[in-house]
Amino acid sequence: MTAPLPPALIDKARALLGERFTTAGAVCDQHAGAGMHLRPLPPQAVAFVHSIDEIAALVQACNASAIAIIPYGAGTSLECHVGAARGGVCLDLSGMQKLISVNEEDLDCTVEAGMTRTALNQHLRHTGLFFPVDPGADATIGGMASTRASGTTTVRYGGMRENVLGLTVVTPTGEVVRTARRARKSAAGYDLTHLFVGAEGTLGVIAEVTLRLFGVPEAIGAAVCAFPSASAATTSVVEAIQQGLPLARAEYLDGAAMAAVNTAFKMNREAGDTLFLEFHGAPEEVSRCADRFKAIALGNGGGEFEWAIDAEARSALWRARHHAGFAIAASRPGAVPWSTDVCVPISRLAECIVQTKADLARAPFPAAVLGHIGDGNFHVVLMLDPKAPQELAAAERFNDALVARAIDMDGTCTGEHGVGLGKREALVAELGAGVALMRSIKGALDPLGLMNPEKIFR
Amino acid sequence: MTAPLPPALIDKARALLGERFTTAGAVCDQHAGAGMHLRPLPPQAVAFVHSIDEIAALVQACNASAIAIIPYGAGTSLECHVGAARGGVCLDLSGMQKLISVNEEDLDCTVEAGMTRTALNQHLRHTGLFFPVDPGADATIGGMASTRASGTTTVRYGGMRENVLGLTVVTPTGEVVRTARRARKSAAGYDLTHLFVGAEGTLGVIAEVTLRLFGVPEAIGAAVCAFPSASAATTSVVEAIQQGLPLARAEYLDGAAMAAVNTAFKMNREAGDTLFLEFHGAPEEVSRCADRFKAIALGNGGGEFEWAIDAEARSALWRARHHAGFAIAASRPGAVPWSTDVCVPISRLAECIVQTKADLARAPFPAAVLGHIGDGNFHVVLMLDPKAPQELAAAERFNDALVARAIDMDGTCTGEHGVGLGKREALVAELGAGVALMRSIKGALDPLGLMNPEKIFR
Repeated sequence: MTAPLPPALIDKARALLGERFTTAGAVCDQHAGAGMHLRPLPPQAVAFVHSIDEIAALVQACNASAIAIIPYGAGTSLECHVGAARGGVCLDLSGMQKLISVNEEDLDCTVEAGMTRTALNQHLRHTGLFFPVDPGADATIGGMASTRASGTTTVRYGGMRENVLGLTVVTPTGEVVRTARRARKSAAGYDLTHLFVGAEGTLGVIAEVTLRLFGVPEAIGAAVCAFPSASAATTSVVEAIQQGLPLARAEYLDGAAMAAVNTAFKMNREAGDTLFLEFHGAPEEVSRCADRFKAIALGNGGGEFEWAIDAEARSALWRARHHAGFAIAASRPGAVPWSTDVCVPISRLAECIVQTKADLARAPFPAAVLGHIGDGNFHVVLMLDPKAPQELAAAERFNDALVARAIDMDGTCTGEHGVGLGKREALVAELGAGVALMRSIKGALDPLGLMNPEKIFR
Repeated sequence: MTAPLPPALIDKARALLGERFTTAGAVCDQHAGAGMHLRPLPPQAVAFVHSIDEIAALVQACNASAIAIIPYGAGTSLECHVGAARGGVCLDLSGMQKLISVNEEDLDCTVEAGMTRTALNQHLRHTGLFFPVDPGADATIGGMASTRASGTTTVRYGGMRENVLGLTVVTPTGEVVRTARRARKSAAGYDLTHLFVGAEGTLGVIAEVTLRLFGVPEAIGAAVCAFPSASAATTSVVEAIQQGLPLARAEYLDGAAMAAVNTAFKMNREAGDTLFLEFHGAPEEVSRCADRFKAIALGNGGGEFEWAIDAEARSALWRARHHAGFAIAASRPGAVPWSTDVCVPISRLAECIVQTKADLARAPFPAAVLGHIGDGNFHVVLMLDPKAPQELAAAERFNDALVARAIDMDGTCTGEHGVGLGKREALVAELGAGVALMRSIKGALDPLGLMNPEKIFR
């Protein structure tokens, strides 16, 4: 049982935030984590902060009472990163949405952590620039930095690892630290930026983020192509990467995912192994790339190469891809989805997907495979009946085998979802003694263990 | 005064390495650091290690005797990174040059830390792949990772920060840790790879490095173009970057640098502000980029755009650029060169160079400016008479002003040379409280402070 919050802390927080600090059960329940295969863990209070100063003051207050702090953005993470595993105060940053600066000449901008990626691109639409990282969900920039998110465009533009230039963080003791200045590169000391990117809020609260931006490409071409097998689809993308073809997006959906998308979006595509592709560049470059990819696809038995050049058709296509998760979830009414996440060297990808699909063929639940396969990263969405505990048990066995297979192929237990509460044993299996180093760093920066406790390691 | 090495340590090291462990003064002097503006600091012994096991055993032995360890690659770093500031044992990794694996399909390879970048590219020449990071000097891959090196091709391919996929390190207590697996991306825990890249050997010894590789471009075009001013040259590159032109190299040399290069290489180019450029891609892309850049240069008053397409002419061009430092050094016989290093957001670059050149016009020593200006990174090579202490004092004032200017422009005190012994105050000026975080991490991983002591912070 978690002890109640100390009255002194509650008084301090109310003096600071007024109504924006609440212990209301309904609000706490809304901040308890995404569910999926992990149970929700509500915090004891939620603080809706509006500034770095408020974050720092609240962190100092929690620190003085040894109360845990859980940073919260849009709540879209998938391994219960925001669950309050040891109670404490949820720091909701969704009210911090200011665009602090856009430096068009330097192709960068600085935003408050609570801004979502779509809101940012909305702000940027008159500049000719955009922020490419696209994890699917409309996550906050701070949350995306914290989980080292990536997504559909990473194959071309990189993920958060590559696109965060610097951060302003509030440390576990309530100090405000800027991790880097705005130069494109620097050799000035330890790489604090990359330390906080992917730390899942366990080392401090990300309050502001400086991001790389890119010019909106002159031309964008999208295409869909069906293949005779998972292996043929995957091999086509791998060959394209190996030939240096600059794919901007390369998304794989298996037959189950396509069937769900067909139903949800009233589409009528072949329900087989399919690639959704995008090419960015000068118009002639886009068509040259598409032609080259077409030839590769043909060589692997790919079917018709369906083009969607105009913005509306393209956007319909990507809407279908982005909502594939929901479409799959809708395909088994009443079921709870669990989205797994592994990433392997691309030379092993086809083999990894084929073996995984063989496992799925024996599983007692329906599932669909989809992924950002240009990076070697894929997900399996398992559709589990919450009333059938044997399905969850089978799903856990399936996931353990998937993670073991990925690690065995010199890959990682998580390409982009992060560790949270769900992948802690997997992390040890993957990095062994490296986890002890992580613990040392955590102990040094957060000696009381108050920042998002229990995440990444026990 | 440093106490003599304990006999027990010497015995242990000799039992382990035989003749490869030496306390000979001449060998120690060869491992004392590059000189330049900082005095050499010889270690008390040098250990020529040949394997990770030897590194681990030696680190454990030094650890047991509380003796400092200084990792050493090719000794090409520029801020006395390898100086033995507190005595101890230099770990020379130049004998560890094995190419452990090349995964052509995954576009990666793993090498021992002592392999140099040119040796690596020599090994790769039959694969159609290459490793692009080019800091000028023929540094070792381990040293380049340790200083977070970058260089001429970073504008296109990134530096070590972007191109190290994983490391095998020996921690300060002698444990062997692999920081990441071979997947292209991962969200698995803290980013240990980026923590060690740029840590300058203060957190452990980098023993093996897994690197991203790239396909050798189908076509390469190089060009030289003279400009009426530093500002015109810089602005041309900044405009090209802002227009998304994929420059593969964009190097600036001022009049003094060009004059030195002319003399050293018996060339006859205009001794004015000059750009050396390179374009990579399909042949039509290379000429399209060159044409677009030509138009930009013309708009800024650029002169004749001299092409060097064939490999021999191109290689002569880049040899001149790569040896510009030596050419500048030769331009004042008997003088000692000091190469500074700052990096600013590219929107401030022209202004920063112009102000810096105004300072130089008043300096009592000759100097040349050159840099990787596509990244906002430039160097000033100061030619100092070692017998005139007032020149060193003036150079220190010049450098302090340059660093302050870069930081004031939201840039960094070092774009690629690192902190070492020379930039420790500058690092505090740049990152303030961030340096305290770095110290905490150092204290946690290296509680005895034995790994390359005194570097990065006092």
